[in-house]
Amino acid sequence: MIPTDHPRYRSLVTREHLADCARKGIVSWEGLISHGRGEAFDYLLGEKTGESARRAGRTAAALLRTARHPVISVNGNTAALAAREIALLQKTSGALVEVNLFHRTPERVRQIETLLRDAGSDVFSGEAERLLPLSHDRAFCRREGMYAADVVLVPLEDGDRCEVLVGMGKKVIAIDLNPLSRTAKMATLTVVDEVTRALPVIANAFLSLTDEECRNLVAALDNPAILKEARDEMAARLCHALD
Amino acid sequence: MIPTDHPRYRSLVTREHLADCARKGIVSWEGLISHGRGEAFDYLLGEKTGESARRAGRTAAALLRTARHPVISVNGNTAALAAREIALLQKTSGALVEVNLFHRTPERVRQIETLLRDAGSDVFSGEAERLLPLSHDRAFCRREGMYAADVVLVPLEDGDRCEVLVGMGKKVIAIDLNPLSRTAKMATLTVVDEVTRALPVIANAFLSLTDEECRNLVAALDNPAILKEARDEMAARLCHALD
Repeated sequence: MIPTDHPRYRSLVTREHLADCARKGIVSWEGLISHGRGEAFDYLLGEKTGESARRAGRTAAALLRTARHPVISVNGNTAALAAREIALLQKTSGALVEVNLFHRTPERVRQIETLLRDAGSDVFSGEAERLLPLSHDRAFCRREGMYAADVVLVPLEDGDRCEVLVGMGKKVIAIDLNPLSRTAKMATLTVVDEVTRALPVIANAFLSLTDEECRNLVAALDNPAILKEARDEMAARLCHALD
Repeated sequence: MIPTDHPRYRSLVTREHLADCARKGIVSWEGLISHGRGEAFDYLLGEKTGESARRAGRTAAALLRTARHPVISVNGNTAALAAREIALLQKTSGALVEVNLFHRTPERVRQIETLLRDAGSDVFSGEAERLLPLSHDRAFCRREGMYAADVVLVPLEDGDRCEVLVGMGKKVIAIDLNPLSRTAKMATLTVVDEVTRALPVIANAFLSLTDEECRNLVAALDNPAILKEARDEMAARLCHALD
């Protein structure tokens, strides 16, 4: 039991939840290490959504609004951390939710799909084929799902799949706390924010943006500038040791 | 199998090793998350020991040299990552090595003590009592060990125990990659460096420093300045997006 007066209570509860999910097989052990990496960068963001991340989230909503066939790709960590927020965005946006895993077993796919459905998502499921040009199991996706998508939202993604999706001509929206990662640099748009904070920002903007605002946000999209703002924000926190 | 020419080979091998240790129960699931956090900060250090960290390591050696009853506190991650380096420092310095765990079970204590002994450490073992004013199981330590210590080296520590040890009048040397952590700020001295790099720096300095150099380093000890240097180094890497 974590004492409720612990100054890092929320972070510790999230860690325990992820560890539970790892014991159940939903989260891989690499997923636990990835989460820790994300924690460090979130710490440097002050564990809050800054102006730059909020604008990136609104731009993500604009990309989803203007998409023909948007897909939200979900892995173990995203399902464990943000199943409710994924359901919210799916209901709001009508995007397909599809499970895509690096450490893929039929059992894990089923577990994660169940978790997502229990949280309220419609999950686009069925037979996956090896359709992406990747040597590992993230190559598996559905022909009518991610393969056919024009915009793919990939929270907590690994770099090489992001590169492949962009190479296939898709617009890739990454949610990644590390502004120096390959994913962050390769994506069409990177929301440098914690996934449970970023997804509701995107869902809210999806509902509130006008068509003109959507067009303007998409036209103004400059991912290197977004990453630079995130890096500067983190650097400022480091330099001034802000709390 | 990880290809040996992979640009992140060393980091990936370390992760696999830690995951193995987690499966065996030596490392806790939360320990994997902590490791990820450390990875992110080490990335911002360029994964090397800078001048500031080297000077902090020498100061740590000076504190150990001038200690009456120095103790090295070891947890699961430290044992999994750096059992050999702990043995080296223990043999060099004559400090007691004592296991102290957040997720404490008799079985885990035994496993970690065995791992440390197999790597060449003398481990100070025996009956632990709840002697530190903490609500969780890190309160357990030995009366003749950490409880009686005047200097405690705590690699990869959590913040509240660091605070408690300082409150008991002990000098605490932390090894912590996060220069913003409570541990880093509470400790008497923080070596902001990766544990397998930091421990040999301390062991080498323990042997090479003169008594006068030890006195001068201890007199000049300024932990806030050390943390500032580490933060500035990381910030520079973020600002310039160095590889």
